[in-house]
Amino acid sequence: MPKKVDREARRQEISAALWRIASTRGMDSASLRDVAAEAGISLGRLQHYFRTKDEMLLFALRHINRLATDRIRDRIEALAEAPTPRDVLRACLSGMLPLDEESRTGLLVGAAYYSRAVHDPALGAEARDGIPKLRAFFADQLRQAADRGEVPPERATEDEAMLLISLTDGLATYVLLGVHGPDDALRILDGHLAGLFGDRTPPVDPPREDAP
Amino acid sequence: MPKKVDREARRQEISAALWRIASTRGMDSASLRDVAAEAGISLGRLQHYFRTKDEMLLFALRHINRLATDRIRDRIEALAEAPTPRDVLRACLSGMLPLDEESRTGLLVGAAYYSRAVHDPALGAEARDGIPKLRAFFADQLRQAADRGEVPPERATEDEAMLLISLTDGLATYVLLGVHGPDDALRILDGHLAGLFGDRTPPVDPPREDAP
Repeated sequence: MPKKVDREARRQEISAALWRIASTRGMDSASLRDVAAEAGISLGRLQHYFRTKDEMLLFALRHINRLATDRIRDRIEALAEAPTPRDVLRACLSGMLPLDEESRTGLLVGAAYYSRAVHDPALGAEARDGIPKLRAFFADQLRQAADRGEVPPERATEDEAMLLISLTDGLATYVLLGVHGPDDALRILDGHLAGLFGDRTPPVDPPREDAP
Repeated sequence: MPKKVDREARRQEISAALWRIASTRGMDSASLRDVAAEAGISLGRLQHYFRTKDEMLLFALRHINRLATDRIRDRIEALAEAPTPRDVLRACLSGMLPLDEESRTGLLVGAAYYSRAVHDPALGAEARDGIPKLRAFFADQLRQAADRGEVPPERATEDEAMLLISLTDGLATYVLLGVHGPDDALRILDGHLAGLFGDRTPPVDPPREDAP
């Protein structure tokens, strides 16, 4: 089926072009025409795949979400035969931080999506659909951890799961803005997980001058 | 000095126009020409105030940050004669959530800023300058709370302060996207503060079916 192969190859070319644009100048200021030029195809052909910039953004967002899911699955499978709920949570949450080029580019696409979705309920549906599923998955991991006696039962809640998503999201934001580095974000995330799992690490700040 | 009065009046008109645009269609898709039209002035006159869209965005961001600071100060002053560190932290953090129209519009401007600043180090300087100051202020409040025996000393750190900023930022993001409501964001923030201050509230999730 050469037609189908062509279509898939074209889709890959477009994904690669979106990727290059997202990681350099950003999707924010890129038009459909810019993306067509980057992919080396005509505007008309690009519009077979998406007619508007919002459709293009959703295409890019779903593509990077698929990559993120694969990346996180690989990380969990590399961990152990039977990963603990804590292993799974840490792999998922650290996978949401910009710790390498791929995850960083993914978050840049997310930033472009976010600034448009807050003004467009149709575009926001992607988050309103996806985040509650992620929250439910994390809450389930917390309940499994509580059943194993690793997390206090009163913290195995949907709210605690939403807190994990929110704080990781915020930590990632401040990496992209250059406020702190990826290592700082990961250390703060690990500090929170240590508190949640009852093995809080010692403070990382230098001792105060008036300390004994 | 009529000249100076004129300039201040004009500045107010422009701020109001930016505000209307930010709270409706968003700054993201608004050009300098659009803002001039909304403010009822010529493009040339608008360009006396800022020459580029990035300058306009910084103007808007600083304006809303000033409003937020005023709002939070009012809230702290209304609290008590000698507010506790916890009062101060809660007032600041809840002031960063979109709990009313003014704070919501402020966060929408912040979203437009964010999506551009991640690709533009010069624009990002605003965050790289401001956030560490906020982090230092929160860390100082945490140390005061630790001195009063209200927070474990090992949690009175810069990392804990950055965690507070990040989680509030993330909670706000998901309000703007319609994933959860302002009340949910505030409840989750309060849950985290309760844990930090050692008076964790009971879980809000309904009891599990296999609970005793």
